[in-house]
Amino acid sequence: MRTYFDCIPCMLRQALDAVRLVTDDEATHEQVLRDLLRAASEMDLGQSPPAMGQHIHRRIRQLTGNDDPYKSIKKHSNRLALKLYPELKCNVEQSGDPLQTAARLAIAGNVIDFGVNSHLDDSYVRDTVEQSLSAQMDADALKEFREAIYEAKDILYLGDNAGEVVFDRLLIEQMPRRKVTFVVRGAPTINDATMADAVVTGLRDLVEVIDNGSDAPGTILEDCSPAFKKRFDAADLIVAKGQGNYETLSDVPKDIFFLLKAKCPVIASHIGCEVGSFVLRRRNGAAVAVRGGENIARV
Amino acid sequence: MRTYFDCIPCMLRQALDAVRLVTDDEATHEQVLRDLLRAASEMDLGQSPPAMGQHIHRRIRQLTGNDDPYKSIKKHSNRLALKLYPELKCNVEQSGDPLQTAARLAIAGNVIDFGVNSHLDDSYVRDTVEQSLSAQMDADALKEFREAIYEAKDILYLGDNAGEVVFDRLLIEQMPRRKVTFVVRGAPTINDATMADAVVTGLRDLVEVIDNGSDAPGTILEDCSPAFKKRFDAADLIVAKGQGNYETLSDVPKDIFFLLKAKCPVIASHIGCEVGSFVLRRRNGAAVAVRGGENIARV
Repeated sequence: MRTYFDCIPCMLRQALDAVRLVTDDEATHEQVLRDLLRAASEMDLGQSPPAMGQHIHRRIRQLTGNDDPYKSIKKHSNRLALKLYPELKCNVEQSGDPLQTAARLAIAGNVIDFGVNSHLDDSYVRDTVEQSLSAQMDADALKEFREAIYEAKDILYLGDNAGEVVFDRLLIEQMPRRKVTFVVRGAPTINDATMADAVVTGLRDLVEVIDNGSDAPGTILEDCSPAFKKRFDAADLIVAKGQGNYETLSDVPKDIFFLLKAKCPVIASHIGCEVGSFVLRRRNGAAVAVRGGENIARV
Repeated sequence: MRTYFDCIPCMLRQALDAVRLVTDDEATHEQVLRDLLRAASEMDLGQSPPAMGQHIHRRIRQLTGNDDPYKSIKKHSNRLALKLYPELKCNVEQSGDPLQTAARLAIAGNVIDFGVNSHLDDSYVRDTVEQSLSAQMDADALKEFREAIYEAKDILYLGDNAGEVVFDRLLIEQMPRRKVTFVVRGAPTINDATMADAVVTGLRDLVEVIDNGSDAPGTILEDCSPAFKKRFDAADLIVAKGQGNYETLSDVPKDIFFLLKAKCPVIASHIGCEVGSFVLRRRNGAAVAVRGGENIARV
């Protein structure tokens, strides 16, 4: 997905939110802002939004001398999600359709996104979990996902954020584990999950975990390591979590299921759903949808 | 008032809204966006936001070859306000305190601001009128304004937007007209009122109307004509309508009453009120306020 004009003001706002989270120094805020304005004035809009996200967050880390500014936020998100885990696990196991319930929860977990919303609080995460569980689901919606998981030999599950990985764990526990490899970012960027988050949330005890060698908040293939690209090419099914992975992979010719919460109008419009929708979408496949409450997803 | 960091993403969004209102040509949208990004990356943040607004809207006019892109919007706003006028006039005349009612309505009229909101519809204007009339008013609030009008010999009333001028007319009708000079912008910028709007809304039949010689969406004194500056210096009371006039004059050492609807968080925070507040504030004077419904103004 390319960068739309409307992404630019939004990125600027996000960059301001981000740098304020990292430092109170107004001179640094201004440096980040001016640098980003200059970069954006010349940017190739054919690139996906995470390319600019990568630039912004590299610059913030560089200017603040802080390699991992979201470290404590990630820690908090992991802790919150792990606290919810036993109850969510119970939900999954006691439901008539554990894979469906786990998929709903994995999508709900995508709300833990400090790139989009730097003011996220715990109660919003809990509310989103509730919403995802009570959302109506099209009977056909999950069918393709279920079949694809059954038929695949090599599933690459691309994670998104810290905290969210606990919700991914619930879904991966419903898949044949030997088939699944979980992927984290190669280095810290926003609150995206890295290897440390996979370890602390127990995901690495469950399945193989690799990193993609990149610090982009998405999966920009040309920026990933050769080792990751080899695994990506070899996989016969990709499960891609979150907006960043959608933005960077929506045009890649692979069998990909995108699971995400559509948090911005540009992505919602690109997908063809309402903002706030819980989305399960196959690339080039038939449309599948989770509908729920105020958030109607028809993708 | 200086330009705050948060003004920049907002200006970009406004510029996109504005250029889309003027043309469907995406290449022009991109040109405006990139030009603005470049300009913003080097801008002097000590300038008030209308300095950038002036730059943006000059560029839009230049790139589209359209001298007055908001002409039809201004026409529509004037027509809407003139349609409301008899009823509003009745409200003023039948109220126990015509000056107070007229001041409330003049503030309500400031909602007709296509710089801030390009999707404004008629019902929102009507709702705002209702809100302003039912808002509670501090008994002391209007006192200073009333006294200042009574004592002043030469009142310069700085108008803001087309349509809004009809609401200003209601307030000016409650002032000694021989004292009042109404000021419009020197050339079209956004939907700001120019001489044509003063004529069509009957304001020029009521009081002297002059223009300020500038195409900024505010009153940047150094950009105004010498003739206007002379009048500004000579006046012993300034009534300044709208955000643009607040942003450009909040630091000018004159006796100024600002009447506006606080439509953005930066201005609301600068004033010390909630977004949405109906504001009547004297520069360097005692605080006066209109409070109402969900919109609480304490300035």
